[in-house]
Amino acid sequence: MELLKNKIIEEGRVLSDTVLKVDSFLNHQVDPKLMKQVGEEFAKKFRNTGITKILTIESSGIAPATMTGLELDVPVIFARKRKSLTLTDHLFTAEVYSYTKKTSNEISVSKDFLHEDDIVLVMDDFLANGQAALGLLEIAKQAKATVVGVGIVIEKGFQTGGKQLRDKGIRVESLAIVESLSDGTVRFKEEARI
Amino acid sequence: MELLKNKIIEEGRVLSDTVLKVDSFLNHQVDPKLMKQVGEEFAKKFRNTGITKILTIESSGIAPATMTGLELDVPVIFARKRKSLTLTDHLFTAEVYSYTKKTSNEISVSKDFLHEDDIVLVMDDFLANGQAALGLLEIAKQAKATVVGVGIVIEKGFQTGGKQLRDKGIRVESLAIVESLSDGTVRFKEEARI
Repeated sequence: MELLKNKIIEEGRVLSDTVLKVDSFLNHQVDPKLMKQVGEEFAKKFRNTGITKILTIESSGIAPATMTGLELDVPVIFARKRKSLTLTDHLFTAEVYSYTKKTSNEISVSKDFLHEDDIVLVMDDFLANGQAALGLLEIAKQAKATVVGVGIVIEKGFQTGGKQLRDKGIRVESLAIVESLSDGTVRFKEEARI
Repeated sequence: MELLKNKIIEEGRVLSDTVLKVDSFLNHQVDPKLMKQVGEEFAKKFRNTGITKILTIESSGIAPATMTGLELDVPVIFARKRKSLTLTDHLFTAEVYSYTKKTSNEISVSKDFLHEDDIVLVMDDFLANGQAALGLLEIAKQAKATVVGVGIVIEKGFQTGGKQLRDKGIRVESLAIVESLSDGTVRFKEEARI
């Protein structure tokens, strides 16, 4: 998605060879118009897959997922993230390890909102080591729902999450795949090579 | 907002005289179409106030705020919520006490995104004791930004937050004001009496 790549180049800050900060339009400040276009792009890719629910995770997944839900006319569930859960009776839960923060979080979704007959698009803002996406897939599996794919705004192509998911046969659609952040420069994987 | 009130009556669950759960369209599962209409409603109310930024708080404020930002064509900042902050150098911070959870959280906004010349609409999903809104107002004050008002999706009119804010001369616009939850029934404050 050219518009997104341009925004990353203009406003993204490369903090190290592995850290890209896009706080100005995705992770802290949100650009609603760009999110709308992101939603339209995902809707185009997944239009004919019969999606009934979008499943994402708080907080940065919410804006792009809500815009995608608007286009596809389906509800969006955002999984809750907690250090640990005490009451898990009516919840699907999964553990998500954050390599950045070096801590585990429990993510959860109420059993009220995800069912066996649901056709789910999993979404997130970033795909790096794939932990969040794997946690969401685990939750969809517990619900016995069908997953049609994973929609990612920015994939770090040099980390293993994308490969892990694709090796499982999961359809992963990333609107921008960053190939490298070395020398403080964002380099994208070319479309044709994806 | 009739549509919202109907949704609350249809899907809201009254758990006690003070607790209303709207997990099916606002706080866990999100109804993107309704959020779009919520955004349009806020935009109508605040259209001519020169807003340059919307300031909300993760996670449930993000969807309605992003839709409002889309209508008003302004960026949305969501304050981060943390138990405690270690690095606060480049942040505006405020403490927010949760009466429900009986704990304090520190909320923060990067100094990169809020400035003296900003005209801010503060938004949140719920207004009860007003702690979150007061925290966001405190952050706007630290940035020396101008606040034109507070936009709330659901106000609990029987709790003190709304009165506290209005007594300070702040314009508060709530799309639905719940007057009472007694006997397991949602009663709204009538429009004319607001």
